[in-house]
Amino acid sequence: MLDYPPAVRKLIAALRQLPTIGPRSAERLALHILQQEESYALSIADSIREARARIKSCPVCGFYCEIDLCEICSDKKRDHRTICVVERPADVISLERSGTYHGLYHVLGGTLSPLDGIGPEQLNIPSLLRRCAGLEVSEIVLALGHDVKGETTSLYLSGELKTASLRVTRLATGLSVGGSLEYADPQTLVHALQGRKEI
Amino acid sequence: MLDYPPAVRKLIAALRQLPTIGPRSAERLALHILQQEESYALSIADSIREARARIKSCPVCGFYCEIDLCEICSDKKRDHRTICVVERPADVISLERSGTYHGLYHVLGGTLSPLDGIGPEQLNIPSLLRRCAGLEVSEIVLALGHDVKGETTSLYLSGELKTASLRVTRLATGLSVGGSLEYADPQTLVHALQGRKEI
Repeated sequence: MLDYPPAVRKLIAALRQLPTIGPRSAERLALHILQQEESYALSIADSIREARARIKSCPVCGFYCEIDLCEICSDKKRDHRTICVVERPADVISLERSGTYHGLYHVLGGTLSPLDGIGPEQLNIPSLLRRCAGLEVSEIVLALGHDVKGETTSLYLSGELKTASLRVTRLATGLSVGGSLEYADPQTLVHALQGRKEI
Repeated sequence: MLDYPPAVRKLIAALRQLPTIGPRSAERLALHILQQEESYALSIADSIREARARIKSCPVCGFYCEIDLCEICSDKKRDHRTICVVERPADVISLERSGTYHGLYHVLGGTLSPLDGIGPEQLNIPSLLRRCAGLEVSEIVLALGHDVKGETTSLYLSGELKTASLRVTRLATGLSVGGSLEYADPQTLVHALQGRKEI
């Protein structure tokens, strides 16, 4: 049975490694790339190379940066006394898009998962503890997921970090804006009720 | 509002150009590429470059090839008197996977669509007519889609090609194997009934 030439098969195999791309999608993407102008394919290939070569982790917070320090850590106008702890770099962007947080960040690179061999040393937790040891920091906002791993990690961090001079807070749990009671799960409703506020 | 560094934004924009990849998927794919080992990103970038540089259209049939002539056209064991006309290179692979066709192919590169300015000259139709002008070819199998454009193109081609010595056939219309009557559309049922066979 005839198949695509080797270079096409290799491209399909490479694209299949991407998340959410199955065999059919990989084939469709590969053929699309082959059908377009050469400059189109090269622009995609170059963007991948360039991003991978240029983007580093900020040595302070772990967010993406192209130079020595990321845009956030090097911004003098931000509140350097508050650090928001997130799981992944994408979470930084989500919070930035909300437009209400003006402190710094710390990207853990995951959540604690002892069964998978992921302890504090495998995440950016030691560097977080060092950052908090400075007198400058006054509040840590834990913005991890409200799932089991996120909860465990939040609990661990609050135990390690809480001191007389350091406030540790976490994001509120409740209904989504625009969300109806009908679609909220019981646990979320428990939290929404317990956290109710005067209006 | 802070956004990803320029190289990441450029990568997201490049991936968004791919079919079926929306803004969220592009972001997820880009971040996945950045999180993996450098060799992973480079292997994807290189496969794209390599495929685009190596893969050419076979000058005879229009299927993909890496050398002068595609694997099918250069295969002496195949039946060189039958040519199956398809729309896209992927259709060649679909037919090859069925394992029943052993002739040659001709990839049109699309279907006739006068409203979009796609006439015979914009497709590989002139080269098909030249191929058929040789005495060697005895049957043309039209394997275009059974939609309006495919039908129009099939009709046009059969008008151009049919001669006393050249048979022009087309793929049968009917139920899918494993398909139930419940999900077959009325038009397909009409064809399935008209094309019924003794068992």
